[in-house]
Amino acid sequence: MKINILSLFPEMFGPLQQSILGKASEKNIVDINVTDFRDFTTNKQHHVDDTPYGGGAGMLLQAQPIFDALDHIESENGSLGRVILLDPAGRKFDQKVAEEFSKEDNLTFICGHYEGYDERIRARVTDEISLGDFVLTGGELGAMVVIDATVRLLPEVLGNNESAVGDSFSTGLLEYPQYTRPASFRGMDVPEVLTSGNHQKIAEWRKKESLRRTLLRRPDLLENYELDDEEKRLLLEVKEEENLF
Amino acid sequence: MKINILSLFPEMFGPLQQSILGKASEKNIVDINVTDFRDFTTNKQHHVDDTPYGGGAGMLLQAQPIFDALDHIESENGSLGRVILLDPAGRKFDQKVAEEFSKEDNLTFICGHYEGYDERIRARVTDEISLGDFVLTGGELGAMVVIDATVRLLPEVLGNNESAVGDSFSTGLLEYPQYTRPASFRGMDVPEVLTSGNHQKIAEWRKKESLRRTLLRRPDLLENYELDDEEKRLLLEVKEEENLF
Repeated sequence: MKINILSLFPEMFGPLQQSILGKASEKNIVDINVTDFRDFTTNKQHHVDDTPYGGGAGMLLQAQPIFDALDHIESENGSLGRVILLDPAGRKFDQKVAEEFSKEDNLTFICGHYEGYDERIRARVTDEISLGDFVLTGGELGAMVVIDATVRLLPEVLGNNESAVGDSFSTGLLEYPQYTRPASFRGMDVPEVLTSGNHQKIAEWRKKESLRRTLLRRPDLLENYELDDEEKRLLLEVKEEENLF
Repeated sequence: MKINILSLFPEMFGPLQQSILGKASEKNIVDINVTDFRDFTTNKQHHVDDTPYGGGAGMLLQAQPIFDALDHIESENGSLGRVILLDPAGRKFDQKVAEEFSKEDNLTFICGHYEGYDERIRARVTDEISLGDFVLTGGELGAMVVIDATVRLLPEVLGNNESAVGDSFSTGLLEYPQYTRPASFRGMDVPEVLTSGNHQKIAEWRKKESLRRTLLRRPDLLENYELDDEEKRLLLEVKEEENLF
């Protein structure tokens, strides 16, 4: 996968060279290129922003440097693929969007900064994406979040130790509680069943606790989840134990 | 504000030294300290993770290094403040949570990595926070997003050019479209009203387009928004123009 990023702060993308994403780059599974669109300004001072028409505080990113940077990348690569703008008015980013993006050959991210940007920039955008109902100082961190969630789904990015199977959201339920050594730590003990060696009971306990956590914390997820017979029975048990009748 | 971060990848936090957040650190508005909790392991190999009780793929972060790192920071600082864990099962992060966090003197973030962590770590956590329904390779990017959204709300972090007033979500509506020079760009023109010099008409156009964008893209935001008389009239006009009757 080829990922293009347009940003005024190319040095912010260091985290993509670390850990799992860094390894994905080393293995050439993903090729990430950051373009400083300040290099595409046509004014002597290399300004990328100007005051808003109609007045008001703040500066806006101008369309010209971004259009010209996109044209340049497109002529070099043949394709920009989907052009993604992080914006609070966009489609909410979730695991489904990450799976969709992970099937693309090319992705291009436009990272705004400061107050806002010229509306005409949206003419080049295929996907306006929102991370959530909050405001950041720029699009860089948001773009890295989207890239991280997307790239980890590509084949061979995660090793066996970091398997994506069993993730929250990939099963439709939240994950069950997990424990590792020591069995007793500061007065807190591992649930007995997990050290019993009884694999059937362990699987049932995990399924039940996964249902419990989802019911208590994200009941909305259960609405779209098709329970099998065992899960129906376990969910009834959970509801009784939690006095939810 | 003092921010402590526990992570196995301290070098991932470079973005916090850049741009607006970097300036907030230079001005001593925020003091960010990253602790590598691998330094607090008690085993010779400095392992921070182990296999899950009950079997299964993946490795889990152990409680011991994280507890000991928290104890160390607490004894040095006097307080950890709120202890935040990024987890898909947590409370959804939004502008309201950012505003809440921005009033604290101390925040401490625990960044997981790999498959998951020992359940007992949650005993030290005051706030489990979810960025959204997606999975990341680790907690680092999520922590930076929360820190960015929080720190930009602190007094004197944003200059006049980057004012937080008028942000999406701070008004309860999405922002209106904005335009800057040139007035005509690649066949796309700035709406005439914005170059009219009529400030009352400009204010009305902006309010109306803010209502239009919110109605079309995030009608849920309007449900919690108290419209004044002018806004009621403008919203009616928008609904007529969009054939939403």
